[in-house]
Amino acid sequence: MQHKSNKIPGMRNDAVNIFYEGLQAVEPGAAVKNYCRLDDDQLIIGDWIYDLEEYNNLYVIGAGKAAAPMAATLERILGQRITSGIINVKYKHLADLKRVKLIEAGHPLPDNNGQRGAGEILDLVQNAENNDLVICLISGGGSALLPLPFPGLSLQDKQDTIKVLLACSATIHEINTIRKHTSMLKGGRLAQAAYPAAIVSLILSDVVGDDLDVIASGPTVPDSSTFAQCIEILNKYDIINTLPESVVAHIQAGAEGEVPETPKEGDPAFKKTRNLIIGSNMDAIMAAEQRAKHLGYNVLVLSSMIEGETRPVAYVHGAIAREIIKTGNPLAPPACILSGGETTVTLKGTGLGGRNQEFALAAAIDIDGSEDIVVLSAGTDGTDGPTDAAGALSDNATMKRAAAMGLNPHHFLANNDSYHFFQKLGDLFVTGPTNTNVMDLRIILVK
Amino acid sequence: MQHKSNKIPGMRNDAVNIFYEGLQAVEPGAAVKNYCRLDDDQLIIGDWIYDLEEYNNLYVIGAGKAAAPMAATLERILGQRITSGIINVKYKHLADLKRVKLIEAGHPLPDNNGQRGAGEILDLVQNAENNDLVICLISGGGSALLPLPFPGLSLQDKQDTIKVLLACSATIHEINTIRKHTSMLKGGRLAQAAYPAAIVSLILSDVVGDDLDVIASGPTVPDSSTFAQCIEILNKYDIINTLPESVVAHIQAGAEGEVPETPKEGDPAFKKTRNLIIGSNMDAIMAAEQRAKHLGYNVLVLSSMIEGETRPVAYVHGAIAREIIKTGNPLAPPACILSGGETTVTLKGTGLGGRNQEFALAAAIDIDGSEDIVVLSAGTDGTDGPTDAAGALSDNATMKRAAAMGLNPHHFLANNDSYHFFQKLGDLFVTGPTNTNVMDLRIILVK
Repeated sequence: MQHKSNKIPGMRNDAVNIFYEGLQAVEPGAAVKNYCRLDDDQLIIGDWIYDLEEYNNLYVIGAGKAAAPMAATLERILGQRITSGIINVKYKHLADLKRVKLIEAGHPLPDNNGQRGAGEILDLVQNAENNDLVICLISGGGSALLPLPFPGLSLQDKQDTIKVLLACSATIHEINTIRKHTSMLKGGRLAQAAYPAAIVSLILSDVVGDDLDVIASGPTVPDSSTFAQCIEILNKYDIINTLPESVVAHIQAGAEGEVPETPKEGDPAFKKTRNLIIGSNMDAIMAAEQRAKHLGYNVLVLSSMIEGETRPVAYVHGAIAREIIKTGNPLAPPACILSGGETTVTLKGTGLGGRNQEFALAAAIDIDGSEDIVVLSAGTDGTDGPTDAAGALSDNATMKRAAAMGLNPHHFLANNDSYHFFQKLGDLFVTGPTNTNVMDLRIILVK
Repeated sequence: MQHKSNKIPGMRNDAVNIFYEGLQAVEPGAAVKNYCRLDDDQLIIGDWIYDLEEYNNLYVIGAGKAAAPMAATLERILGQRITSGIINVKYKHLADLKRVKLIEAGHPLPDNNGQRGAGEILDLVQNAENNDLVICLISGGGSALLPLPFPGLSLQDKQDTIKVLLACSATIHEINTIRKHTSMLKGGRLAQAAYPAAIVSLILSDVVGDDLDVIASGPTVPDSSTFAQCIEILNKYDIINTLPESVVAHIQAGAEGEVPETPKEGDPAFKKTRNLIIGSNMDAIMAAEQRAKHLGYNVLVLSSMIEGETRPVAYVHGAIAREIIKTGNPLAPPACILSGGETTVTLKGTGLGGRNQEFALAAAIDIDGSEDIVVLSAGTDGTDGPTDAAGALSDNATMKRAAAMGLNPHHFLANNDSYHFFQKLGDLFVTGPTNTNVMDLRIILVK
């Protein structure tokens, strides 16, 4: 069925507009500002009030790709009330800071700079006292950027350990259990080290489901895993002889009570610890929802926790969009479907692309020949796979335009080459680095 | 997180109840009754009124697995007003008919009985005249059960042709193009043969999207494909020397105008032809929706057109259910998500199962540890893969129950062995043959 329409350009603009509205809500500075303000001597963080007159020192620490702009905003809010601070950031992820020291470090592979910065952060919080307040800024990459192996273990030991665990298909939960038990800061140990100072973590979540103990391996969150479970994992995969000897020795010592366990729920440190998610995928979705409503769309917020293989996920989104056109279910057009999370791509081809571009391509195939549907899928960090695009835009006419240019979308999809497909069509969505990361945002508009 | 609840048994009952309500709406007899009634001499079919005084004869023809109960209901409505009729049904898919002749035939592989019945149906409609009315009953399996190759072609030729096309990965659209151009009845030719009699098709759709020209290869629907396209397909896959010679010769003759084209939009026959879908996946969903509302659930009708690989599709459903619990999006609990269509399973293991059982298993893994969620996925025809179950039930405690029995759900899933997993848990959903087929129905309840 031929369908001529001039609605598409306007809908594409709407989709981009909705995306940026979502992005803006989780921009690191905006996120800090949304949750922190100073009212005379009262520092209000979320629902909590800290009377700064009661605190002798106010320290700012943290790690993550967004730590610099988060710290900059905090400096604007708190100014000279900040005693001092140290944050670990990824190389070149800088900001102009006056009171907080900034240490550039390796990501995704931790390096010595990261370890040095993590050591300084540990020193700082260990010296903090009962009437001190520590604000901890956590964002994506915070785990790799806050590496502090136990004495006797090296960064290389930890990396070798992760490699072995990945090779034997250990679950992410098992890997985190080992990670937390070989680190001086993860698994709640940072909060424990800061005690008896008060500590509040402001967290930008880059994890599906926003589990506090998973984001940056939960440095200020009670840990429910144990050294005994580490031993079980070593036995389960039979890797005692494959792992670095120092790591095995450390875990065995821990299991025998010679190394303190990670702090558990009920540890006194957590009475003075608070964790607050100031930016998440759902925050971006909620802001996008408001914008879409303002633009006149009926909005369906599907889920912020969409994972799984990209193509079938795209087909489900396409099926919902087509149902909207066919029967007005689950809601009447003009409609906007919003979803978030992070899908995966099992690479079979040799092309260039990312999960968001592949989503847009698979969706284009699914909605070919239908009435007006526009799809925008993009990473909120501005990157998608090993490309310079954040994602891509497609619509119900994409297949026809591709055919007119002699491009076969099925071939590009089979070769995981969505980047070159959309590059030729001029439909890559490029934002540049956004300084934030709350995973992906998908916007489907239907008229 | 441990979560004790006694809501699950009640929710399971609700899910089963909702499923049967959906099923009942698309039971063949109920579907005919929903759309056909007699008011004195007026036969009202959907929005159309046929004044039976204007018709000399009323014939009933048709093919499909549900044709017998459809014809039985029509006989109850029309009684002696039916002049005569012939329907082709699958072996043992019988009903007690008084005026309509019933011919048992092969399915899914067409056989000589089918061809004989199809020939008798063609004779009947060819003899129908200007003031006659033909009611045609179409349901799942109608294509295989109405086989009438052109003179010079055999059933074996047609089957060999399909095999070659499948082997070279031709699309379903391409296969249907060849199918329609080698048949005396498909691709609108049945309607053309009946002309100048009036013909109305009552259709139970077993096809995602309910495309009229796809269901049973559209015997009463204009065909947009051509013999020229058949030639293109032969060239594209380079199969001119692989296909039966008789088929190639027939297609070449057609392309040269020596065999009439399938009738197109605008053919006078279609002025006297009507097609009405009396039962579809969405009909089942709508009935299920009413029941779920009655039971107190907020209902989200996701889409009746869900296709694609089963596991990621299950994970998307799981993500929506978990979002409902976490944030009340896209709707507040108690909530019911309904979806339909037909997913696929790429077999990698050697176990026993079906797409619905695999859906329930993958969903169980996805929702493990969440609060109260119940999942029911089942085929409306009462079968799921090569098993005696229609599908399966699972919930957020399924993984825990399995673990207590020493069963590892991941292993069963990896081996495509969902049947034995749910058999051991007692969670297979068995309906027996339902005599209808509008694909699958998935019900997710969240409290």
